[in-house]
Amino acid sequence: MDRLMDIPSSAELKRVVVVGGGFAGLNFCKRLKDERFQIVLLDKTNHHNFQPLLYQVATAGVEPSSISFPFRSLFAGRKNFHIRMCEVLETDAETQEVKTSIGRLHYDYLVIATGCDTNYFGNKALEENTMALKTTAEALYNRNHILESFERAVDTDDMQEREKLLTFVVVGGGATGVELAGALAEMRRFVLRKDYPDLDVDKMRIILVDGKDRLLYSFKPKSSREAEEYLRYRGVELKQKTRVLGYENEVLRLSNEEIPTANVFWTAGVIANSMGGFSSDMYGHGNRLIVDEFNRVGGYKNVFALGDTALMKQKDWPDGHPQVAQPAMQQADNCADNILAMENGEALKPFKYHDRGSMATIGRNHAVVETKGLVFGGFLGWLVWLVIHLMNIVGFKNRLLIFIDWVWSYFTHNSNLRIVVRPLIKGDRLYRLMKAQEQIREQKHKKTDNS
Amino acid sequence: MDRLMDIPSSAELKRVVVVGGGFAGLNFCKRLKDERFQIVLLDKTNHHNFQPLLYQVATAGVEPSSISFPFRSLFAGRKNFHIRMCEVLETDAETQEVKTSIGRLHYDYLVIATGCDTNYFGNKALEENTMALKTTAEALYNRNHILESFERAVDTDDMQEREKLLTFVVVGGGATGVELAGALAEMRRFVLRKDYPDLDVDKMRIILVDGKDRLLYSFKPKSSREAEEYLRYRGVELKQKTRVLGYENEVLRLSNEEIPTANVFWTAGVIANSMGGFSSDMYGHGNRLIVDEFNRVGGYKNVFALGDTALMKQKDWPDGHPQVAQPAMQQADNCADNILAMENGEALKPFKYHDRGSMATIGRNHAVVETKGLVFGGFLGWLVWLVIHLMNIVGFKNRLLIFIDWVWSYFTHNSNLRIVVRPLIKGDRLYRLMKAQEQIREQKHKKTDNS
Repeated sequence: MDRLMDIPSSAELKRVVVVGGGFAGLNFCKRLKDERFQIVLLDKTNHHNFQPLLYQVATAGVEPSSISFPFRSLFAGRKNFHIRMCEVLETDAETQEVKTSIGRLHYDYLVIATGCDTNYFGNKALEENTMALKTTAEALYNRNHILESFERAVDTDDMQEREKLLTFVVVGGGATGVELAGALAEMRRFVLRKDYPDLDVDKMRIILVDGKDRLLYSFKPKSSREAEEYLRYRGVELKQKTRVLGYENEVLRLSNEEIPTANVFWTAGVIANSMGGFSSDMYGHGNRLIVDEFNRVGGYKNVFALGDTALMKQKDWPDGHPQVAQPAMQQADNCADNILAMENGEALKPFKYHDRGSMATIGRNHAVVETKGLVFGGFLGWLVWLVIHLMNIVGFKNRLLIFIDWVWSYFTHNSNLRIVVRPLIKGDRLYRLMKAQEQIREQKHKKTDNS
Repeated sequence: MDRLMDIPSSAELKRVVVVGGGFAGLNFCKRLKDERFQIVLLDKTNHHNFQPLLYQVATAGVEPSSISFPFRSLFAGRKNFHIRMCEVLETDAETQEVKTSIGRLHYDYLVIATGCDTNYFGNKALEENTMALKTTAEALYNRNHILESFERAVDTDDMQEREKLLTFVVVGGGATGVELAGALAEMRRFVLRKDYPDLDVDKMRIILVDGKDRLLYSFKPKSSREAEEYLRYRGVELKQKTRVLGYENEVLRLSNEEIPTANVFWTAGVIANSMGGFSSDMYGHGNRLIVDEFNRVGGYKNVFALGDTALMKQKDWPDGHPQVAQPAMQQADNCADNILAMENGEALKPFKYHDRGSMATIGRNHAVVETKGLVFGGFLGWLVWLVIHLMNIVGFKNRLLIFIDWVWSYFTHNSNLRIVVRPLIKGDRLYRLMKAQEQIREQKHKKTDNS
């Protein structure tokens, strides 16, 4: 559509358009507080989503609302701050415009923080039949699916069918895969045993498939060993050095065997989200935008990419920084400072990554932590990490209450979360209602385009 | 499908099949605790849903999980108690069987407690274009729709379009309609003002349309007056003695005017959910199954209908009892006692309704209450009513904590609930995934039918 977005313009204000409200985008907006700037935050959803805990939503451990933070609340009261829910389609760096699903918008500075999506490496069958874990909607989908598998397993008297329904395969031995497998083992211990006395708990299989020779490959071997030992202790079957070839008709084909299963989670790779408007030579591996040490893209002075979607090759990081929250948040701070410096006519500061360590949860309150040369596991590290990360968000306003609410729901094993809510089922009124409304919107867009 | 459901049979146990886990079904299961019975609870979902507060989910006041109670947790530990998530299609009262989406099941006693659905009185356009409020899924749909209307209103520069998006029409002046209109007025006060500084709060219109000459027609005139005054005070426009003719292209046609609006909620009528197998003369008005004073259907000694779906004409209730929680819960208790009496060879007790009063919330913590000749409004009555109703559910197990959690979230105006989560949007991977899995299930059903 060719209309201009309805955002006030003013000669005094430099407009900074931020695409994406993940860790990078959110921290950037938080940092750049100067009255000379107007900030426009564009996102497909209306909320920040604390991705590291999405696996808890999928396994009915916490509510989506406990790890979701609506932008409008986070930035309530900020002057010259505008939020629009839309999809960004394309950038024109020459005319300094982005094209979105709700119109065009001119920028003085553009900050691209679009994050990552799941990577299926081109395998259509996997893309169409496995579950991913990148958005709140996906996490809720997975929760429904897991609970429905339990329900269907209770009912069937076909033992092969029951086996399929109770076999849960997680593909990918990185932090997300390890966390999800650990949480599924918790579900077997706490949920299946209590809620499904008709089912034999031992018949639930949890299998973690990974291509490498050790889990948590980006961690130190000691952490990998601890994760492997803990998961085995909880009854997770590890299939390492194993590739996935395909998944059809509820059979997962591995390089060395076949597993009948109705539940496959795909956490084996990520690919940066992109928008149109950049030539292919501006992209590096994983679809990441190549940036210089100031996070600038393609030689443009006013276009920046941050976090997961940026590829900055530095001395200690020849393949770019890890695609986790810490580099994203630090790049955001540095970028906000540099944009301010440009306005002040000061020198820019190159980005320097301060590696505060890594961490993965492998069970309820059980984690592996690596920081400042230390490698340890357990509850304390888990808590410290959690508080540091969450405080970056909740610190915005005095949102400690929400944190307490979350901790409460996490520790009380609130069984009310185990509800199946399928909003749109075949032939359902809601589905038809959604379709009707979609049609109305499309007609409006056409009308706007023609006018 | 022609298979038998996989539920253990035993000559010593009489099987009671309960269809529906609303107020009636749940209370029946709670009451009938005798080792001579096996209970099988069938429901389309896996949880009881506290319907009187669904309007709070729709207006982002509470989480679905706060008013949903999974059956498996509620009945954890009960012996000879089986739960199946399925749709009940048909009853054969001669062979004493129900047919469901997952197979057939024989019963000794059948308890039909299927509740109500929204009634559009045959108007297809209304059915396809307005929002209802009977299920958790619908409430979440409405929440997303309301928040998206706000977002779209912020963006548009077409003033007619903005007017449509900010006009909210509730059709139906009963308790649900009054409550929803009141809650929308709360959203204008608390949410719109805070989260959308770009929008002029006064531009949000809330209109309540009703065919009668006073709201809450089943209440006393004093209550109606109080509700009308309070809603007007909160800026709700009342259009009474007004009929709705149609809703097309975002224009609502009333008997005396037309209102351009993108948001129409339909709460103007209910119709009892039915299943196949009963002849048309067994149904009374509102599609309710005619029952005798023991809640028995069609002259059968072992088939009962309870609550909203039952029509029992008694001296003080020539049109049947009101379709609310109280009669449903009391009929459930009486029916459970009578089934036990039948096994003991004792006389059955006819149902007698103890009218404990009615109540409707018209604003946050503001209600009208009628009980034992008293008619009053305000906060205390609201709290008393709430505690009585919720305790019937939460009393099952020591679930007070969940109640506290709910009260917390209600009083803190948790803004995190204001998240838009659309699981299935056009062309989305999740939608295709759901379709693929539906197909697999259908193929399985066909296989089972043919075998």
